[in-house]
Amino acid sequence: MISRPVGRIEGLRARLVHDHLDALLIVSLPNARYLTGFSGSTALVVVSQRDVTLITDFRYETQTADECFTGTTVRIEAASLWKGLWEVLSRDIQVKAIGFESAHLMHRDFQRCLEQGDRWHWRPTLDLVESSRMVKDPGERDLIRLAGVVAMDALAATLPQVRAGLTELEVCGILESELRSRGSEAHPFPPIVASGERAALPHARASNRVIGPGDFLLLDFGATVQGYCSDVTRTFVVGAASERQRVVHDLVRRAQEAALAGIRAGITGKAADATARDLIEAGGHGAGFGHGLGHGLGLEVHESPRLSRLSEDSLPIGSVVTIEPGVYVPGWGGVRIEDDVYVTSGGVELLTEYPRALVELTP
Amino acid sequence: MISRPVGRIEGLRARLVHDHLDALLIVSLPNARYLTGFSGSTALVVVSQRDVTLITDFRYETQTADECFTGTTVRIEAASLWKGLWEVLSRDIQVKAIGFESAHLMHRDFQRCLEQGDRWHWRPTLDLVESSRMVKDPGERDLIRLAGVVAMDALAATLPQVRAGLTELEVCGILESELRSRGSEAHPFPPIVASGERAALPHARASNRVIGPGDFLLLDFGATVQGYCSDVTRTFVVGAASERQRVVHDLVRRAQEAALAGIRAGITGKAADATARDLIEAGGHGAGFGHGLGHGLGLEVHESPRLSRLSEDSLPIGSVVTIEPGVYVPGWGGVRIEDDVYVTSGGVELLTEYPRALVELTP
Repeated sequence: MISRPVGRIEGLRARLVHDHLDALLIVSLPNARYLTGFSGSTALVVVSQRDVTLITDFRYETQTADECFTGTTVRIEAASLWKGLWEVLSRDIQVKAIGFESAHLMHRDFQRCLEQGDRWHWRPTLDLVESSRMVKDPGERDLIRLAGVVAMDALAATLPQVRAGLTELEVCGILESELRSRGSEAHPFPPIVASGERAALPHARASNRVIGPGDFLLLDFGATVQGYCSDVTRTFVVGAASERQRVVHDLVRRAQEAALAGIRAGITGKAADATARDLIEAGGHGAGFGHGLGHGLGLEVHESPRLSRLSEDSLPIGSVVTIEPGVYVPGWGGVRIEDDVYVTSGGVELLTEYPRALVELTP
Repeated sequence: MISRPVGRIEGLRARLVHDHLDALLIVSLPNARYLTGFSGSTALVVVSQRDVTLITDFRYETQTADECFTGTTVRIEAASLWKGLWEVLSRDIQVKAIGFESAHLMHRDFQRCLEQGDRWHWRPTLDLVESSRMVKDPGERDLIRLAGVVAMDALAATLPQVRAGLTELEVCGILESELRSRGSEAHPFPPIVASGERAALPHARASNRVIGPGDFLLLDFGATVQGYCSDVTRTFVVGAASERQRVVHDLVRRAQEAALAGIRAGITGKAADATARDLIEAGGHGAGFGHGLGHGLGLEVHESPRLSRLSEDSLPIGSVVTIEPGVYVPGWGGVRIEDDVYVTSGGVELLTEYPRALVELTP
């Protein structure tokens, strides 16, 4: 058994008292993992003032013993987890008002709860666990940093294998293999490998496109270490870069460095976004930066806080966020540079170390 | 634009009439893809007697033009898809009673619907689209077959690179790379690479375990072609197999071949499961076959129908299912052999061709 990280359950319990809830039902798997350590794909978790209970099925009996934090009561169900839930809830007569995760509970499962009649009162909640997850403890920060090292080492090993004539999917496979051989447990998202004019599509998947000399090659990917994700991007040119490619790359690099220098705890998501966007707008490419500057990451690759033109979220001390400005020119190509940082009162601590200057790959 | 496959919308519309629904709101992405062709990660779809409307965001403008079936009205929203939904629904005064997918709609989004007041009546539905998806047309069957070819070719290319001393994660990376270089658009699930005693864990992920001589090596993985998945398993021995390994492998192989010979349309999931389970029980390993015989697959890797001891589902003509018996001996290892088949009135058509006899890999 692994010691439960300090504060996770205590903070949630204080919040339940504040919200007049006797217990919280957790169906989100990343939230369940955060509270219990369990990484399986089927779980219900109940946190009350008395207990932390994980309900899962027989396939995970060994795994719960290996993974669960101390203080977690594990209940293995042969058939329905919901049947187990009703029994767990029945055993604590203090539990009457139960919060549930409105953004994660399916309508069908909400109906299951209502069908239990007036035994319990079900109350929708939003972000009770997510708001704690936004602030990382040093252990979490170090795992994200490790996931960053795995990602960047995999990138360094991939680049010498890239050449014109390969497809994006072939490069994607090489990168996935280098991530795996360095211990990445999972791809936090399918790597984006976008070449030539496809680099202008911020959410391109890897395709059968053959990479040609003079193409941009944008790689956006991550690694996972003990559940924690990294998420990084670099954009290269295969062969000699044109003047226009250099100019756009340089603009994005300067915008990213301005953000790294300008962001600190307490800044709003909007103001953080502006640290990079102002430069890109001044460079005449404001319309080509169609997404936000970044997002929180941790057990999931997209978490709070959001860094965007619309976000009033304030960046707390200890949040981990991506800084990823981009410029996209439809039909021509695009550049994005992305790193992960730990937010402190004085600024940011870079978790992903890798050169940002434009690299021309051997064609 | 791509022609809409015949029958998909017509069948759903007939079902809506039968259920007294004027329209169906679809939030499940695989269901949205089945009805419109759209493969993006953000979409709401409304099917009424008059229209098929896809609502998505600006990132997907180009992609909808490339992917959507004829007859799909595409609406691009700058901000909230839900705001777009209310407008789409308002335009058709015939639409009053709207079905929604109870197993896919989050409580929070259900609340958004209720907050629209009495403009519409919201009715929960289950499996309206999934039940059509269960029966594959010849085009779908052929894509699954192609995904099977990609998977099996990748396996053939991976095996000569496997040797004792590699970790499971390294083998996983080699396999992923071979899948990508043959055009697999996505890994339908993270490949399972389980060696030695870990082969006894039916849901093992690849780990840092070093593969040793004499170990079982179980590979369970798939490929994706135009959205359609394959899902296959073979179990090898690294070096010389022991007598016990041979006996267990042979039992599983015979059970799988009995299932391939015994299953045809109309059989229940339970009876299908028994075609293999009876042999495994007769071989004294009944307790070691802890999961069902198989499951449907298509746009998702787990679909209806289910083949298990509890399933009363009847296998329709044209369903595609996995046949994957296994025997697991905790602390020692396990064997699973899995192929994908197309179910016909006379039997099954094998979609994944690869030898099943035990192979001893060069250690």
